[in-house]
Amino acid sequence: MDLKTKSRYNKILDEVLLDISPSNDEEKEEKILSKKIIEELYNILHKENLMDLIEDIVQVGSTARGTNLKNDYDIDIFVRFKKNIDKEILKETILKIGKKAIENLGGKYQIEYAEHPYISGNIGKYEIDIVPCYKLNWMEKIISSVDRTPLHNEFLINTLKKHPLHNDVRLLKKFLKGLGIYGSDLKSKGFSGYLCELLIIHYGGFINTLINAQRWRIGEKIILNEIYNLYNMDKNSYKFKDFEDPLIVYDPVDLNRNVAAALSRENFCKFIFYSHQFLKNPSKEYFYNYNEKIIERINNRNKGILITLCIRRNSEIVEDIIYPQMEKLQRSINKFLIENDFEIIEYGTYANENICYLSWEFLVGVLPNVYVKVGPPVFSKRGVDSFIKKYERCFIKDCNICAYVDRKYPNIYLLFNDIVSGKLKGKIKYPKYVSPEGATIYENIFVNQYFSIINMNNKKIIKNY
Amino acid sequence: MDLKTKSRYNKILDEVLLDISPSNDEEKEEKILSKKIIEELYNILHKENLMDLIEDIVQVGSTARGTNLKNDYDIDIFVRFKKNIDKEILKETILKIGKKAIENLGGKYQIEYAEHPYISGNIGKYEIDIVPCYKLNWMEKIISSVDRTPLHNEFLINTLKKHPLHNDVRLLKKFLKGLGIYGSDLKSKGFSGYLCELLIIHYGGFINTLINAQRWRIGEKIILNEIYNLYNMDKNSYKFKDFEDPLIVYDPVDLNRNVAAALSRENFCKFIFYSHQFLKNPSKEYFYNYNEKIIERINNRNKGILITLCIRRNSEIVEDIIYPQMEKLQRSINKFLIENDFEIIEYGTYANENICYLSWEFLVGVLPNVYVKVGPPVFSKRGVDSFIKKYERCFIKDCNICAYVDRKYPNIYLLFNDIVSGKLKGKIKYPKYVSPEGATIYENIFVNQYFSIINMNNKKIIKNY
Repeated sequence: MDLKTKSRYNKILDEVLLDISPSNDEEKEEKILSKKIIEELYNILHKENLMDLIEDIVQVGSTARGTNLKNDYDIDIFVRFKKNIDKEILKETILKIGKKAIENLGGKYQIEYAEHPYISGNIGKYEIDIVPCYKLNWMEKIISSVDRTPLHNEFLINTLKKHPLHNDVRLLKKFLKGLGIYGSDLKSKGFSGYLCELLIIHYGGFINTLINAQRWRIGEKIILNEIYNLYNMDKNSYKFKDFEDPLIVYDPVDLNRNVAAALSRENFCKFIFYSHQFLKNPSKEYFYNYNEKIIERINNRNKGILITLCIRRNSEIVEDIIYPQMEKLQRSINKFLIENDFEIIEYGTYANENICYLSWEFLVGVLPNVYVKVGPPVFSKRGVDSFIKKYERCFIKDCNICAYVDRKYPNIYLLFNDIVSGKLKGKIKYPKYVSPEGATIYENIFVNQYFSIINMNNKKIIKNY
Repeated sequence: MDLKTKSRYNKILDEVLLDISPSNDEEKEEKILSKKIIEELYNILHKENLMDLIEDIVQVGSTARGTNLKNDYDIDIFVRFKKNIDKEILKETILKIGKKAIENLGGKYQIEYAEHPYISGNIGKYEIDIVPCYKLNWMEKIISSVDRTPLHNEFLINTLKKHPLHNDVRLLKKFLKGLGIYGSDLKSKGFSGYLCELLIIHYGGFINTLINAQRWRIGEKIILNEIYNLYNMDKNSYKFKDFEDPLIVYDPVDLNRNVAAALSRENFCKFIFYSHQFLKNPSKEYFYNYNEKIIERINNRNKGILITLCIRRNSEIVEDIIYPQMEKLQRSINKFLIENDFEIIEYGTYANENICYLSWEFLVGVLPNVYVKVGPPVFSKRGVDSFIKKYERCFIKDCNICAYVDRKYPNIYLLFNDIVSGKLKGKIKYPKYVSPEGATIYENIFVNQYFSIINMNNKKIIKNY
């Protein structure tokens, strides 16, 4: 890279950094509060005579290692139990001491549930998670899925001490947020914070990560140098596990885990594409709601037939369950729509607290009342015999027996009506928490996570079509 | 085959035969006239001192060998010239003696053109062709394409003398006529009379041909036993020429010729299918306009959008030129229609003396004013760069760069209008004799060789849409 280009990047990146890095005051305040919480937890454990149960208490997460963005007020505290402690005692203990600690520091708490229950509390603007896990050594088999987290933290703190790339991590996170591909939850299907940190360490910086992504292909494998050192491994002899994912980044803490497992093909490709665009024409705008701007631009166009299914949702079911079920339902409906010759231009899902939206844009909504059913080739006598028994109006086209058949759904609203009336339960999989039975059908409306074409004046509820 | 089944076939076949075989009187009358014509030709040659030019005069065709259908009043007379006679003298001579012979017998003549000109005349209800050719011996290289015909005739007469399968040939011809797949012209793309005769000889009869067709596959090769005898060949040593056709029947007169070359895949498959149907449920109806009944039955259905192009035709250009050009034009238009997202349900061509009809049935005629253009995958940097330069509203879908693009033809009539105005000359190939420039576009009309949906009250001429 020539100096001029480099300085062009640097100017932009410095401006972004100024905007996204926490201030010294912010960092200091956060450190003091974290320390206080840990001390308070130790106090309570002493008082309650529970110190024998635990190994230690550690702060983890990006705030702990200085890779967090400004205005990120998350503090994650992990209470590490001894390995021989029973799971029930672990649960009981974390609830008892977590509640007390938050209360003693003047905050409010609630109980959240992952693999184990944990305490989530608010103290001022800070959101504090107090999570139980077992203390493991390197290469030990995990007992609960969060046991890895303190080891991730340890690995990153040690590595970032040698290579102080904290700001590069922040830039990558902000860049991915701008593109709408940050977050490893099942709704976002993007890059996790931990993945950002590993990429920056591996490639030695933000711009280098973008440059290296330009030669990524589906199935790209990344093995950090630190892995070879940590495990005292020969580079050529160890056989790493195979994964089917578009990007494979081996977790230094657990070589059988792909840190990028949640990343979808599309988001993998988006990263490659927009990195390329940024490197060619660097601009601050990529870091700030760039995805919304793209969506707005591409949606400024003529539209096909728009249909949205609105399905009432149980708000207690979390997004990581709702989104996969919405997508599963939409895939199942898509298959049925395509079988019935309705061509899909675009589709998407979105859920707010109360409603799941499944939206489609179609090429056409009305088809002639006839279609050509293509049967087996004439050489397959048995297939042909059963075909002509089943269908009238048969004819030969090229080498196949075909028939003109009456179309079941010449109108797409008839099809959606059968979905919401429950008639298509056999052909479409109705998921447990996102069942389209009794859903409302809206015309001229498209809703998804990026962009909603909701014009309530144009809406029309289709019922008993 | 059990006796009961056999007798069921026999009853039907006997009834059909009774209907399609020429009467004795008919055969006698035809024989007398043929003889008269040949005698008259010899007389003229004598008088004009032209006997030196020719070898002999022979009657050929199905009437000559007793495989013709009733009411087939075609008499084909071939005047065989000596091989050293100049082509110009051959032409001059045939016109002179042909005209005179027809006139002397009280008929009317006209000159027709194939590779050479020949005389076509009418005497009473008979249509007589007097054709010039060279007399060849077996395995001699042909000079003009009709030189094979007398050898075909000779081969068939000799073979049918040993195996009197004349009636089986008649049944096969009538069966194929009923199915609309008789005739080797470029419009019919079916079975020629000669092909019927060879198949019947090879399989030893009508029912056996139908049974054997049940195990035919694309590329079926048929080599008559007579070929091995005629050419004194070893069955395993001779390497027969390869052909790409669905059915390959080696011509005993010329082993480098496939007698079934004109047969289309579809008609090959139709024969297999309807043979199977007939063998399962024998019925006389297969022999009588069965194809029209099928077409009528399958056309009794809902229709999509119908459009017909009517193109004025020079009636001097023969069907064997017009049909391939119509089909070529339709294929070229189909390609362009599909590129523009118009889905074709059915299409077909038909020509009468003055007009070529190209017809289509479409799924829909109107599309939204937008489509998704799929570009190269994001890994192809150069492809992506040129794509985003060309299109606005780009986005990533799975691994490809895509764009929403304005549709050029949201309405199918706009597209057909550009065809008839000549604007699409670059994208569609306009054939010499079937040019759609200046053609008329009809809506709600479908015309093809089997079935015409012409309702002149519903017609609507689209102009300056």
